[in-house]
Amino acid sequence: MLIKDIGEQGLLRILQKFCPAEIVGDDCAVLPTNPNQSLAVTTDMLVDGVHFSDRTTGPYYAGWRAAAANLSDLAAMGARPLAVTVALAVSADTAVDWVEEFYRGMTACLQEYHTPIAGGDVVRSPVVTIAITALGQVEENRTICRSNARSNWGIVATGFHGTSRAGLELLLNPEFGQNLEKGDRISLILAHQQPKPRLDVLPILWEILDAAGAMEPPLSPPLAKGGKQESNSLSPPLSKGGPGGVNSPIAIAGMDSSDGLADAIVQVCRASGVGANVDRTKIPIPHSLSEIVSAQKALDWALYGGEDFELVLFLPIDRAKLLVERIGDGAAIVGITTECADIWLSDSSGICPDFRLEIDRGFQHF
Amino acid sequence: MLIKDIGEQGLLRILQKFCPAEIVGDDCAVLPTNPNQSLAVTTDMLVDGVHFSDRTTGPYYAGWRAAAANLSDLAAMGARPLAVTVALAVSADTAVDWVEEFYRGMTACLQEYHTPIAGGDVVRSPVVTIAITALGQVEENRTICRSNARSNWGIVATGFHGTSRAGLELLLNPEFGQNLEKGDRISLILAHQQPKPRLDVLPILWEILDAAGAMEPPLSPPLAKGGKQESNSLSPPLSKGGPGGVNSPIAIAGMDSSDGLADAIVQVCRASGVGANVDRTKIPIPHSLSEIVSAQKALDWALYGGEDFELVLFLPIDRAKLLVERIGDGAAIVGITTECADIWLSDSSGICPDFRLEIDRGFQHF
Repeated sequence: MLIKDIGEQGLLRILQKFCPAEIVGDDCAVLPTNPNQSLAVTTDMLVDGVHFSDRTTGPYYAGWRAAAANLSDLAAMGARPLAVTVALAVSADTAVDWVEEFYRGMTACLQEYHTPIAGGDVVRSPVVTIAITALGQVEENRTICRSNARSNWGIVATGFHGTSRAGLELLLNPEFGQNLEKGDRISLILAHQQPKPRLDVLPILWEILDAAGAMEPPLSPPLAKGGKQESNSLSPPLSKGGPGGVNSPIAIAGMDSSDGLADAIVQVCRASGVGANVDRTKIPIPHSLSEIVSAQKALDWALYGGEDFELVLFLPIDRAKLLVERIGDGAAIVGITTECADIWLSDSSGICPDFRLEIDRGFQHF
Repeated sequence: MLIKDIGEQGLLRILQKFCPAEIVGDDCAVLPTNPNQSLAVTTDMLVDGVHFSDRTTGPYYAGWRAAAANLSDLAAMGARPLAVTVALAVSADTAVDWVEEFYRGMTACLQEYHTPIAGGDVVRSPVVTIAITALGQVEENRTICRSNARSNWGIVATGFHGTSRAGLELLLNPEFGQNLEKGDRISLILAHQQPKPRLDVLPILWEILDAAGAMEPPLSPPLAKGGKQESNSLSPPLSKGGPGGVNSPIAIAGMDSSDGLADAIVQVCRASGVGANVDRTKIPIPHSLSEIVSAQKALDWALYGGEDFELVLFLPIDRAKLLVERIGDGAAIVGITTECADIWLSDSSGICPDFRLEIDRGFQHF
């Protein structure tokens, strides 16, 4: 059954099932907000053939991944999700099943984080396109900016990296990784198909920072500001505080690793005007990767593969250690920030020579 | 010069000029909000060849219209704009000039209403596509819902209708309307190219309603609820108040006339479970239309043409009269709501027979 068989009203009836029951259909959705919290907002656009493909993901997982990517952006700012809006462009020849499965996957992910779809738009286009805007709320003094890192802080990766890229490879090449145990295989594929935004890290983080913060005065603004923007995100923090973008910056900086671990480390270091020593032996890579690719390839996927949707958090060493202990499950301190602006990938085992971490290998749209 | 000539980073540098200077580029934009106000959110997606065309609008006006349509949705809910996000899909062969002009038009409109672009996304697609999400804030007891109208209220159109459709006709057929005075011609074309969202109506409306409300108790919930949703909007009000979607509904209902005056009247009546008598002689149609088309055609454009982006407000007669006086400039009471669910288009001059107002003539996407 195609969209043209059911028409616009038929399509809307299907999509409304995925929105909260109290739908009335006004010009806007109206959402109650918590006082004394700022609004965090992020937008992603996904295009058929560019950002998803039935060959590897299928509509259910494309929907899940779209929701997860947006919730991960909220988590990366320290924000709890409030709602998302979804704009959908489909052609008259798009299968109704495809659209329903996409919404099923998207809402399955959103429901795990108690996030409703608060409206959207449905239009016609020759190319299936989805734009998701996620809204969250964050306490003003808990906003996690990229520009707030200082030297001699720990760099925490909240979980394994390279898993999503490995899962993609398994999906693309069914003959690849035949030697993997079934459980490991499924786990890598799910890392690609159903990534989990790390909203679960935030309560642990606040607990550690609140306990530490009670014992010391707030940070002064950072000394240096870099700021070359390499991501294709255009999101500016608009809060009117100091250079860190917050009124009274807490001792935390970070972003998510959606564009790769290397990208996250380099972006935060540049925005904060610090450098880093990253230890390749500390990067959390699942053991199963060693059974299917070389150590160099596994490192490559961990650094540049992207879409692991972990958080990369920069904070004073003592708190970084506490955080890693509390999160467990692959979380690790992968490096230390430095005053010098260079970012080195070193090897504490002494096997590989040090080299400068670059991010010009990231995905370019044009 | 094409996008592929300047690459993703070149494109981002251009687009960042249109965002506030304090851009840092985090995973989300962070916006301060007013306490005791709800968040209003609306999303529109625009597709090249479907929603805009260089033949009639050009990128500057396409950008203006996209911004105006979203701000109009906020105005229709009683919300003041906070910010918008913009997701843009372009191909490598899209002209850089096109993108810059689109952003110029969009920001020109946004700046008139002090609304920043708070980030977005840039991706590759074979079809130029833009998704705009507008965020606004509205006091909880001032939310203008569709479902709140009662019988014997006045239906106010805040300005002329049919103008945008007439302007489009002038752009499509340059030989059409040669008899028009130059000023009238320009004014109709501008109504299509640079519509003004009626955010200016809100302060007048609150002043009238506050003065009236001080003299009487709040409304009880509406008696009947319709609710067949005909628009392609999927925006549910999520506030947890009574059936009207607000905690203590004020005596107002409404929406904007982006899909035509007839659509607005029918949608609000259905959502509120009331009917209406609309007087065709009261519908504000500019005199210049009588010089280019028949009275019937002019009425047709006013009712079904769409994109006039006026507000269609339902409120008790005394306040409706005050509102029309204060707005001036085409504003008129076009009808009265009734207990019976039918919506009649009558003719107080007695020339035309009454007929039922329908909206199955509206734009269908599929």
